Amino acid sequence: MKITRVTVTPIAFKDAPLLNAAGIHEPYALRSIIEIETDSGHIGLGESYGDAPALAVLDAVKRELIGLDPFHLNRLREIVRGVVARMSPASAARAELAPGSHASKAVSNAYSAFEVACLDAQARYLNVPLVDLLGGAVRKEVPFSAYLFFKYTEHIDSPYAPDTWGEAISEAQIVEQARRMINDYGFESIKLKAGALEPEHEVACIKALKRAFPGAPLRIDPNGNWSLDTALRMAELLGNDLQYYEDPTPGLEGMAELHRRTGMPLATNMVVTDFDEFRRSVALNSVQIVLADHHYWGGLRDTQQLARMCDTFGIGVSMHSNSHLGISLMAMTHVAASVENLSYACDTHYPWQEPDEEVVKGGKLPIRGGCVQLSDAPGLGLEIDRDQLGKLHELYQTCGIRQRDDVGQMRKYRPDWRNVKPRY
Amino acid sequence: MKITRVTVTPIAFKDAPLLNAAGIHEPYALRSIIEIETDSGHIGLGESYGDAPALAVLDAVKRELIGLDPFHLNRLREIVRGVVARMSPASAARAELAPGSHASKAVSNAYSAFEVACLDAQARYLNVPLVDLLGGAVRKEVPFSAYLFFKYTEHIDSPYAPDTWGEAISEAQIVEQARRMINDYGFESIKLKAGALEPEHEVACIKALKRAFPGAPLRIDPNGNWSLDTALRMAELLGNDLQYYEDPTPGLEGMAELHRRTGMPLATNMVVTDFDEFRRSVALNSVQIVLADHHYWGGLRDTQQLARMCDTFGIGVSMHSNSHLGISLMAMTHVAASVENLSYACDTHYPWQEPDEEVVKGGKLPIRGGCVQLSDAPGLGLEIDRDQLGKLHELYQTCGIRQRDDVGQMRKYRPDWRNVKPRY
Repeated sequence: MKITRVTVTPIAFKDAPLLNAAGIHEPYALRSIIEIETDSGHIGLGESYGDAPALAVLDAVKRELIGLDPFHLNRLREIVRGVVARMSPASAARAELAPGSHASKAVSNAYSAFEVACLDAQARYLNVPLVDLLGGAVRKEVPFSAYLFFKYTEHIDSPYAPDTWGEAISEAQIVEQARRMINDYGFESIKLKAGALEPEHEVACIKALKRAFPGAPLRIDPNGNWSLDTALRMAELLGNDLQYYEDPTPGLEGMAELHRRTGMPLATNMVVTDFDEFRRSVALNSVQIVLADHHYWGGLRDTQQLARMCDTFGIGVSMHSNSHLGISLMAMTHVAASVENLSYACDTHYPWQEPDEEVVKGGKLPIRGGCVQLSDAPGLGLEIDRDQLGKLHELYQTCGIRQRDDVGQMRKYRPDWRNVKPRY
Repeated sequence: MKITRVTVTPIAFKDAPLLNAAGIHEPYALRSIIEIETDSGHIGLGESYGDAPALAVLDAVKRELIGLDPFHLNRLREIVRGVVARMSPASAARAELAPGSHASKAVSNAYSAFEVACLDAQARYLNVPLVDLLGGAVRKEVPFSAYLFFKYTEHIDSPYAPDTWGEAISEAQIVEQARRMINDYGFESIKLKAGALEPEHEVACIKALKRAFPGAPLRIDPNGNWSLDTALRMAELLGNDLQYYEDPTPGLEGMAELHRRTGMPLATNMVVTDFDEFRRSVALNSVQIVLADHHYWGGLRDTQQLARMCDTFGIGVSMHSNSHLGISLMAMTHVAASVENLSYACDTHYPWQEPDEEVVKGGKLPIRGGCVQLSDAPGLGLEIDRDQLGKLHELYQTCGIRQRDDVGQMRKYRPDWRNVKPRY
């Protein structure tokens, strides 16, 4: 089997005015949709970052993939390394909430984008679900969590009608957001994206969630936006309310010190984002849970390797998410289904995406009982809806965004907004 | 694809009177040959341990494999775990030189035996070399090293005519053994199995090898049979003669102390034999090179995971060997060909096996220029020679050995021989 054609289509889709440590989401999120075709008549799909530096690498790599056997993933990695070495892509430092968009991740990002597509093609060639190439499913459905955000009613520049979620700033509004998300999707765990408002208020929201959903495991994620002192102070207020405390404070050292002083289980997608940081984290005992993300950890097989490493070092495993569509969701589901030591429900932004903005046939993938089901369909089990892909590609062409900039977006609301970290 | 038939055939083949830390090899080595057949008409081959406790597990597992899809390796692992939990196989403590035969390795051993056969069947089904299921070859040939042993001319009980290698006790005889092995196979590295004679003599043999083959990387492996003091003393004598110092002294702590005091790179197949020991070794900085062995590390994919872990923690990777035949050699070759960070030529006992004792068609696999070549043939590229398999199975039935016992064998020469460790 040889690759005969590779297409990388940048897309944009509506993104809600969600607050975070850097600022606020822009009106559109960017992604790329990867399609490979083989001489055997099979296709393979992938989804990855859509920022300009990521696209530049994907575009440069794709030209070198014609003739590659999709099974030859080691050769794919060599090709990607070669391309990145020649390009030295610009740092995408502004997108600091998306570790995958850092320039240092250029190889693992681009490799991952094509690895998923190659595995999809392999599995279609074999007429088996992709998870079978990862050893087969140890679970038939993968649990995700309700991912709550503080948010405004609509974007400042009103590029489109307000979403149906409304404002979420107060405790009551956050509880209401959780209630709708749980009603609609059946999530059993709740994560609150924090680091956006006053820490005491954010903790009060966790307390409100605890009262409203006493049985639901809770997590708060300030995205490293709290100083060690603040993180310690909030830890005291939080007591035993959390399932885990995600990236409260920056740095491997800060997290290690926080764990040493509180004993709380700390999760991360910020201080352990590659194998070298994993090694350093082990030495410092910085984190107890790694939130994996195949998009920047180097694909599905590398995510399995990370999970095995976590198992070896007594570290829990779950999964991180950025704004994404169904191909990413299904790739996450297949790898999560293969990871025996998946310890927690995974994160996903998927409920925040609009029902009419999905590039796969049949529209948005269902999340039921908080879970995404595996099917027996070959590969990822997805086909591209070309009309939808065309529509979202056109949105990419017209939206004017080429690189995520939550700081710049917040400056439209608050011209004095600065990118300080930790802010609290 | 479903498994329709599983065969596990115990075999015995001649083994030379090779000296080691425990005692001396018996006249026959035991192995098992695994064959699976699928409803698609494909076969898969594996080779594993042949000691009674290992065979008992393999036999118990094989009954539960009918109907399993060879792609469902996670399910295979569950099955093996279930069987082992029910059996609690007896400890094979006497076989301490073969970490794979320890009872604690029962799951990873049996899983590995069938995993290789399943991967072979997968690859034949796909009509690709097995290495393609491991991401494809990063090298087309895998280097092995000359594996020298102190040895007697023949076994004490003369069960068959002496081998053609003759005695190897003196420096000159060891150099002669190396010369023949290098002439016949083109090896570029040399390993001396030690821990058998006086340490000073063994070190003198290394010095003689250094003089005879000044360009060849040298290694000595006393199999943990030297006290820390002896290992330190020999380190001083050895100076910079070694590429690495393999298992000179027992235990993670002993190795860590030796490295701390000498700075020498230490390799092991004795103190890091599973992922938990890997974790402990990282904490102690016990070893700098792990000699992997898919037979007890849990198969080819787990060996890849170990290699990635070694890469993460700055640890070198090579491969360990016990007495084995061609299926094991080819499985080692495929996984080694996929491991980018393979840092050293691998070990193999293969030259010690007799030319007319190989179970694969075409007889013994060639080693040229010190390397085993990958072919483009599907799977491992090997077929069973049924006459040969029958012959070696008959040898198993008549040889009287059911569990490796190098200590007991040495007592035939020296009735007062005791299993003390470290002996020197």
